[in-house]
Order: sequence, then C-alpha cells, then structure tokens
Amino acid sequence: MTVETVAVPRRIPLEPAASAMVWVAPDRPHELAAFVGVELGGSELLVEVELATICGSDVHTAHGDRTAPAPLILGHEQVGRVIALGSGEPCAVDGSPIAVGDRVVWSIAASCGACDRCESGLTQKCRALRKYGHERIGNRWALSGGFATHTHLLAGTPIVRVPDSVPAEVLAPVSCGTATAWAALDAVARTVTLPGATVLVSGAGLIGLTATALATDRGARVVVADPDPARRSLALRFGAVASYDPAASEHDIAQSLEAAGAGGGFDAVVEASGSSAAVLGAFASATVGGAIVLVGSVSPTEPVPVDPERIVRHLLTVTGVHNYTAEHLRAAAEFMVQQWRSRPFRELVGATVALRDLDAGIGMAGSGGPVRVAVDPRR
Amino acid sequence: MTVETVAVPRRIPLEPAASAMVWVAPDRPHELAAFVGVELGGSELLVEVELATICGSDVHTAHGDRTAPAPLILGHEQVGRVIALGSGEPCAVDGSPIAVGDRVVWSIAASCGACDRCESGLTQKCRALRKYGHERIGNRWALSGGFATHTHLLAGTPIVRVPDSVPAEVLAPVSCGTATAWAALDAVARTVTLPGATVLVSGAGLIGLTATALATDRGARVVVADPDPARRSLALRFGAVASYDPAASEHDIAQSLEAAGAGGGFDAVVEASGSSAAVLGAFASATVGGAIVLVGSVSPTEPVPVDPERIVRHLLTVTGVHNYTAEHLRAAAEFMVQQWRSRPFRELVGATVALRDLDAGIGMAGSGGPVRVAVDPRR
Repeated sequence: MTVETVAVPRRIPLEPAASAMVWVAPDRPHELAAFVGVELGGSELLVEVELATICGSDVHTAHGDRTAPAPLILGHEQVGRVIALGSGEPCAVDGSPIAVGDRVVWSIAASCGACDRCESGLTQKCRALRKYGHERIGNRWALSGGFATHTHLLAGTPIVRVPDSVPAEVLAPVSCGTATAWAALDAVARTVTLPGATVLVSGAGLIGLTATALATDRGARVVVADPDPARRSLALRFGAVASYDPAASEHDIAQSLEAAGAGGGFDAVVEASGSSAAVLGAFASATVGGAIVLVGSVSPTEPVPVDPERIVRHLLTVTGVHNYTAEHLRAAAEFMVQQWRSRPFRELVGATVALRDLDAGIGMAGSGGPVRVAVDPRR
Repeated sequence: MTVETVAVPRRIPLEPAASAMVWVAPDRPHELAAFVGVELGGSELLVEVELATICGSDVHTAHGDRTAPAPLILGHEQVGRVIALGSGEPCAVDGSPIAVGDRVVWSIAASCGACDRCESGLTQKCRALRKYGHERIGNRWALSGGFATHTHLLAGTPIVRVPDSVPAEVLAPVSCGTATAWAALDAVARTVTLPGATVLVSGAGLIGLTATALATDRGARVVVADPDPARRSLALRFGAVASYDPAASEHDIAQSLEAAGAGGGFDAVVEASGSSAAVLGAFASATVGGAIVLVGSVSPTEPVPVDPERIVRHLLTVTGVHNYTAEHLRAAAEFMVQQWRSRPFRELVGATVALRDLDAGIGMAGSGGPVRVAVDPRR
C-alpha cells in the first residue's frame, strides 16, 4: 500500500453566504442559490466579484442557442478582489505573487499547462480546460461563474492585477471581449503590416469596437460594417474612418468605401459579427495578400460557400480566433488600464442590474441595445 | 521639349533562327514558328533552353480550361544556358553577376520591384507582372515561354545558377512545381512546428510529392491522399508513411489513418489537387491549431461549403499559395541541387518529346500517367 501526501484543501466559510444566479434550463428564470463556503486547493483563490458584464454568449446559452450543462453559473467577464488564498502561492501572469486585497481580472479558462496543446501554446484548447461560466456546478467547483458574489479561481488561471483607479465597467469585459479582440489583432498582424493598412471590421459589438480602436491606434484605416446606425456612430468614436450598413445597396456600399479610400478592397478583415453573410463578405472584401480573421462565428450557422481559387490566387490568409492566451489577457488589460479614457469604452456598459435581476439584464443584452449590460452583485 | 536618354536595346541575330511552338486556340495544334532575332534591353538576357517540362496548367490552357491570350508560347518550367546579355549587368538572386555560359533556372514571372505589392513582399502579384508562358506574343517580348529553343528573360526575373552535374529533368520543374511546393511548406511552417507534426498532402502531383519530401525531411509524418494507386506508391518513395484513396470508404480511410498514427486529425494539410472535395476534406481533417494550405485550386470550381464555426473553434489557419517569391525559388533550387538523389525526383519525368511533338506531349501529360512530360528543344 502506497501512502501519498495530499494537500488538504483549505475550507473558507462564507458569512454571509455567497449568492449566485444559477441557470437551470433554456428560457427558464435563473434561480438564486446560496453557498456557505468553498474549499480552496493549493494555488486556488477566492475573489469577491465587483462587477460582471453579460457577454453575447451568455445570452445565447440562456436562450438555448448553444448547448451547456445545467445547473451552471453563467458569466465570464468580471473584475473582483481577492479575499482568500489556498495553501499555495498563486502568481499573476507577470510572475508576481497574488495577495489578499488585490483587484484582479482573470482568464475565461484554466489550463493544465502540461498537455500537448498547452505545450504548443494553444492553452485555450487545453485537453483539461475548465472554463468559467461554462461548467456544471460540482462539489469541488461550484462558484465557477461571474454572475455571483464570489468566484473560485482554479490553479492554471491567468490572473492580472489591475489598479483601483480604473472603472469596473471597462475592466469586466477584458477577460472576454477585450482579450479576444487583442488576439484577433494579433492574428491580423501576423500577416499584414498594420500601419497604413485598410481594415474592415464587421460587427460593432465589444470585440469589433475594441478591434477598431486597437487597429486605429496601430495606424490602420478602419471601416466598420454594422446594420445598427447607433453602433455605426459608436464605431466612428472608436476610431473608424467610415462605417456602412451591410444591408445597403452594393452601389451605396461601394461609394462609402471609395470615399473612405478602401475602394480596392481591404488588407485585413476582422469578422466579429458571426453572420454567414458577413463571413462570405469577408472573403470577397480582402485584397491580394490580405488577412481574414474570423472571430464572431461561435454559434452554428449555415455553411458559407467559399471559392478556393480566390483564396489561392489572392494569397489570402484566413485565421480562426477563439478565446486567447495569457499573454493576450495581460496585453488587453494593460491596454485598457492605460487607454480606457481614449475611447468611450465606459459607455459600452449601457445599464447595470442587481444580481437578482440577471434575467432582466440578459433580456436587455439580447435586445441589441447597449453593447454590454453589467451585473452588480453588491446591489 | 525634353530630351531623354533611352537605352538602345541590343539586337541579337539568331542563326539558325529560334523555334517555338505557338498556341493559337484551345484544342488546336500548336504551330511551329521561327524567330530570327531578339532585342535585349538592359539587364535582359537570352537563354538557350536545354529542357522544359509540361505543367498541369499548360495542359489546362491548351484545352481551354483557363483563359489565356493567343498567340502565346506556353511553358514556364525549364532549365537553360545564357547565350547573350543586354547592355546591363543582370544578377542572380544571390547577388552574383550572371554571365554568358551560366546554366540557370528562372522564376515563372518578372516583377517591377517598385509597386506597393512588390514593396510588401508580394512580388508574385506585382502590379506590372509579366509571366513566362502566359503572355501574348508581342513585338518587344516574343520568346516568353519555355516550349521553344530560346527564352528571352526580362529584367526583374529572379534567376538562379545551377551546376552542370544536376540532371535537367529535376531542374526544369524547379521554376513552378518545386518552388511552389517550397512556398506551401513555408506557409505551413508559419503556423505549425514541422518536426513531429502529422501532415496530410492531398494530390500526389509534382507539388504534392515535393511537399511530401520537404515535410518528411523536416521531421513531419506525412500521409498522402490520391486516387491513383501508382501515385500513392510513388508517394511512399517520397517519404510518406502512408497513403490512401480519397474515394475509399470512410471506414477504410479511418483505419489507414489510425494505422498511420493520424487518427486524431492532421496538424497541417497541404491541398495540392485542386479538387473541391479535397478542399472540403482539408477543412474537416485539420486538428485544433492546424494549418490548411491551399495550393492546388488554380482553376474555377464549385464553391466549397465551409463551416466558419469550425475555423474559429479549431483555431485553424487557412493560407492560399500561388506561385512564390525569389527566395522560394532560390531555396527550392538549392534543395534540388543538393537532394535530387534522395528521392526519385528524376523518375517524375516519365517521357520526353521533341519540341515539334509538343501536342503529343501535352496529350500524354493530360492523361494522368507520368507526373511530368519533358520537351527537348534540341531534338
């Protein structure tokens, strides 16, 4: 018989109990649940959530447009403060130790760091990936989502410390939309030199608007396509030189592009809407040597009819981006900490609801109005 | 009135006259034509063709499956010897001066070196591109194709000197198939680490077989798909660990892949057949983080129904490769000079015809038998 040393999880009693909104089935109201304590393993930690934001994928899951295991606590965009540590010494992405009291954002997922995918840098596709806001409530990991007063962070979760001076509204989305936009721009930059490039961003949601700001800041001329006139106006405030309605006539679109100096096609297209028509348009819009980055297609759609000869003769590079790496999170958080005032990032949170009003918040987020609706677990 | 200094082209009389096979219309016999001289501008040169090979695209053009201007001299895979220079001092890709007597291979195209595309490294898509074997016979540039006793090389043509000791059969294809295969592997290597990777090559033509050898030499495990059993056997001799018939049953293919250790999908797919079904298969075969390089789709096909969500969630990178750069030509020529004995490259030329028998050679090349049919202009 072999005797093994097992790290005993540290039990953290919660008084008052933690609250979380639990999703139980598509289009059923969330149920408020209480958790009286958590057990923190080595290098795990407990965070008190300051503010969470509702991502488009939360809306899709809530309505059953994506499959998800129930019961689960949704939410993967949030900022919070560390209130307890396990027996280990968790570190931030920059290598510095994390302490109780630190204000932090964290990745959408925890990776093992040891499997073939982690070793080849695809940590977001770790063989043992555990994703915040996506997992069935379990004995060892119950508080796994952001729509709660507390979140239990696992070992292998990239964590970034953020200063108190930055508003929670601009930090909460960092761990999904902002970091994904950063990853998308990174994919563009692997193929195209951004200074002087023309970039089409399709879809002016959080990813598209952030990508617009990032590409503009790197010297690109960005044009944004979105059917919503309010979003198109917003895109101009994020740096776009022009915007157009993809449902407009071909003639009108061509005129807009000509006026924007992009009549000859785009050096890069960031497709952030997920619409099949926009994906098809991306293939048609990229010029010779161009980069097409698909980042919006995270729900099933009809197949898109693609002309392989065009990909070949135009020397196109098409890259799929889904989630991001620790370095993308670090860079995205740093960008937001330094630049949040440079564009109207704060306005992207158009409403804030109390935790128990999550369903109303999801309804608002799904209406296409505000880019983000926030959930305040302290209200 | 402005007086400009104009470099006077050097007139090179040809005695006996140069001969070329001229393509006049789809499925019409080539016509033998004589050219009694050429005018060489600065940095231009005249090459006596030693051997040319018939590329698949020559076959397509001859049959009218691709549009092309007539009359034209086809052929863009060849090796020859420099017999005359213009007033300038042309240089090889490595910077050394080219002299009369040098044995050379040259690029499929001449680029201006000054336009936006050339400046961004897309020399194969130069705004003023002139392509060997693809241009209507003109006053200033008649001997523009390889199916001739002589070829007139323009300024801006990447040229590589090759030693006399290497057989012409392995050098002639360097300027199309070999260099394109090199460019395709280069595209794979931008996304995937080749040592230890599993690579699917679809289509065991010259590009596919060369890519198989290149990927194998860099440490990848290559599986080749081709409907022709003779090509599949050849693929194994070029380094493939396994091969299969894409028309076989799914069960049989799955078994072959399992046996080859590629049951979990491929880290990279090089699609060199141009078949729509193979392109669709490439998207299905690539694993998470995989690279798909499309290089065979150079003729119109039906659109291929692609699932954008798979591209996104699998973090796929799809790259179109068409032709290549000067550096690819240099590297491909160096590879062939050093490695031609390592694989049965010489056997790829299954037959050689005299220049005046070009039509018979094209018929043979289109039959799917030998990978290449050579044309010997000195017979």
